Amino acid sequence: MSAQHCDTLLHAGIVLTQNEKREVLHNAGIAITAGKIDAVGDWDAISKEFSAKDERDLQNCLVLPGLINCHTHNSMTAFRGLADDLPLMDWLENHIWPMEKKLDAEIIQYAGAIGCGEMIRTGTTCFCDMYLHEDVTAKLAQGTGMRAVLGEGLLGFPTRRYSNLNEALDLIESLHLRNKKYGTRVTTCVAPHAVYTTNLELLEKSFALAEELDIPWTVHLAETTEESARSEEMFGCRPVEYLHRAGCLSPRSVLVHCVDLTEEEQDCIAESGASVVHNPRSNMKLASGISPVAGLLERDVNVCLGTDGAASNNGLNIFREMKAAALLQKVSTQDPTVCPAQTVLDMATRNAAKALGQADLGSIAPKNIADIIALDLDEPALCPVYTPASHIVYAAGGQEVCFSMVAGEVIYSNGVYTHFEIEELRECSRRIADWVRAEKVRSQTGA
Amino acid sequence: MSAQHCDTLLHAGIVLTQNEKREVLHNAGIAITAGKIDAVGDWDAISKEFSAKDERDLQNCLVLPGLINCHTHNSMTAFRGLADDLPLMDWLENHIWPMEKKLDAEIIQYAGAIGCGEMIRTGTTCFCDMYLHEDVTAKLAQGTGMRAVLGEGLLGFPTRRYSNLNEALDLIESLHLRNKKYGTRVTTCVAPHAVYTTNLELLEKSFALAEELDIPWTVHLAETTEESARSEEMFGCRPVEYLHRAGCLSPRSVLVHCVDLTEEEQDCIAESGASVVHNPRSNMKLASGISPVAGLLERDVNVCLGTDGAASNNGLNIFREMKAAALLQKVSTQDPTVCPAQTVLDMATRNAAKALGQADLGSIAPKNIADIIALDLDEPALCPVYTPASHIVYAAGGQEVCFSMVAGEVIYSNGVYTHFEIEELRECSRRIADWVRAEKVRSQTGA
Repeated sequence: MSAQHCDTLLHAGIVLTQNEKREVLHNAGIAITAGKIDAVGDWDAISKEFSAKDERDLQNCLVLPGLINCHTHNSMTAFRGLADDLPLMDWLENHIWPMEKKLDAEIIQYAGAIGCGEMIRTGTTCFCDMYLHEDVTAKLAQGTGMRAVLGEGLLGFPTRRYSNLNEALDLIESLHLRNKKYGTRVTTCVAPHAVYTTNLELLEKSFALAEELDIPWTVHLAETTEESARSEEMFGCRPVEYLHRAGCLSPRSVLVHCVDLTEEEQDCIAESGASVVHNPRSNMKLASGISPVAGLLERDVNVCLGTDGAASNNGLNIFREMKAAALLQKVSTQDPTVCPAQTVLDMATRNAAKALGQADLGSIAPKNIADIIALDLDEPALCPVYTPASHIVYAAGGQEVCFSMVAGEVIYSNGVYTHFEIEELRECSRRIADWVRAEKVRSQTGA
Repeated sequence: MSAQHCDTLLHAGIVLTQNEKREVLHNAGIAITAGKIDAVGDWDAISKEFSAKDERDLQNCLVLPGLINCHTHNSMTAFRGLADDLPLMDWLENHIWPMEKKLDAEIIQYAGAIGCGEMIRTGTTCFCDMYLHEDVTAKLAQGTGMRAVLGEGLLGFPTRRYSNLNEALDLIESLHLRNKKYGTRVTTCVAPHAVYTTNLELLEKSFALAEELDIPWTVHLAETTEESARSEEMFGCRPVEYLHRAGCLSPRSVLVHCVDLTEEEQDCIAESGASVVHNPRSNMKLASGISPVAGLLERDVNVCLGTDGAASNNGLNIFREMKAAALLQKVSTQDPTVCPAQTVLDMATRNAAKALGQADLGSIAPKNIADIIALDLDEPALCPVYTPASHIVYAAGGQEVCFSMVAGEVIYSNGVYTHFEIEELRECSRRIADWVRAEKVRSQTGA
């Protein structure tokens, strides 16, 4: 019997499949055709069954599904380290919002390119974004080879992008249609900003649109105790109840932050089937609080991970978010057994795929999409290896990633981005810094 | 006037001097002779004043003093990820201690080499160690080019290294004498394990030895509430009071962990002039608790950072420890302004140098020792740059380090260790893993 042809054959030292049984394979092969996984298994068997022109030697690597960043504001990378260590309102009102108001498509593109560069470099193959100019981000994500789920932020007042709710919803629909040209790699979500920055009509109609287009609906929720107080003042109830009453809690809902939750609110989210995106390092840096992730997991809530934007983190690295998530729960519950490595790895892979409605991502299994990364096991920080999942969550920092593939296409290999030159990112960085400096001068001189 | 000769001239894009004024210099030069800094300042001036055969172009780099890891058990790198997510006593009794008992000089050396490899790779130039076979670690540190302060762990019962207190103290003294052959790069400290694993005589005599040799005295202290309870049971008082009564709290004392501290204990430590080593990620992972670092800083306690061993962290990366320290204090005090970036960077540089009694480390200033690192500003995670200290603490992950020098000698440059081959670390890793596997089989078969 002659071998079956496939596009790419990966020969891996260790594979963390993240399949239903969470199998870990040693000396394994992965055959890939047309962006999908044909087969994964013992190298001897796979290499007899398949042949490929493009065979990759990853024998000294730990191979796993590409990580998924379920919440970021990618182009806020423009503001990385612009202002830190400040009280929340000072930070927002005097540093972030004034600059954000002036953001244009050009800066969105430059900053987004750096964000994508960092995510690819650190093993993220897919991100869910909520920000401005998502048409620019769509083009950009496509250009870097990344997978993206993009939601233009919806606010309950006129912005430079829309003057009323109908226009806003039209914008989402048109972005959704435009993204179709990128195939399944760049898709759309509906992303109202938060309960306190929108209104009931916006929440209801945006949710209906998400249902109609069959795409995820994501919102910032219960980030701080101040948000809860404000919600009670504005609507006479806390944010989770408000969303529940508005009919916006369902398996389609991707709820971001969920820091200030009562036990009843955790029950309510669990019953609804909604997913929660935990952003531990942003919550810590802004002193927002600690999400009751252990409680949510006990209730079988689908918990995922996000980095939030680089202005409040100050990075877009899901490896570091995984470790922070595990450690923060252990210390806050005073229990070293909660949030074990495997659970946290699930958050960044399988759970995220489920939240985004793309169950063929997040695990290395036949018929699934080939979004795959590999870490170099020669990095001293990864020596020696006993338990691969523990290594990914507790030892790796992300920069051990030496290979990344999206839909079977290599987007990064041994320090080289295949879709762009790293010099382009330097140029983007220079332009953003120049723009920030100029804007600061302008605001100081009142020009 | 002709230029003065120096050994090495660094041309840096940005220098975080960490000097008394915390000056940040752009386009700066650092002249180095015989391991010490001759001058630092504007490049045009420095390059006119000095000439060197070895001129290094670090124009695209952020340059700062080498980081100092004030508490680790370097050779526990053998147990990185061997067991995680377990209750403390299960982890210690069934996984760590049984393996530790069998550690020999060979494994100490292999594991220590990987630990040093990781520390160098991530910008640490000096570490303070408390473990076994510190003679092996001394040779090893010297071989890698690192600076080290080494303390053979002292226990109040016979071990394979000594059968009584006098033998133990003799061992420290002989290690101190042997280390002198390494010059000032590898030095000694006195390191009783903890209050509950020693006794009053050991604490007093070991402290007297540290005074006599004029070297640091370091001890695990107040790591958990269980430790406090045990101390009350054994000695009728909590650990800080016990040490205070024993006369062991002074500027020579380097107190590791200090998680379970009352306000009065914080006052007591502040009055004594002792230093505290905060190990945030080990404390989080083992669910030990959160050290009241903000309170210690308010009292002007000299707080430093440590990684603890790779069995409980699972890495030896001070960049990641800095971010964890800042974020953990912010979220636990509900105040985003505590532990700002500059304060945390001081912990890992100036404060650590003070704690170890080597004030000529930790800042880039004339006459100081040239322990210097540089980070590659082209890494996407470091783009763009506004505030260098913020970048070091919040954005960098350590693997952006592209250059490292100890006492004016380059020990790492662009992926290459100058004192050893990375292949040697692979071999060490293989041997450790083989040993662990064999020991596991042996213990399962009762052999």
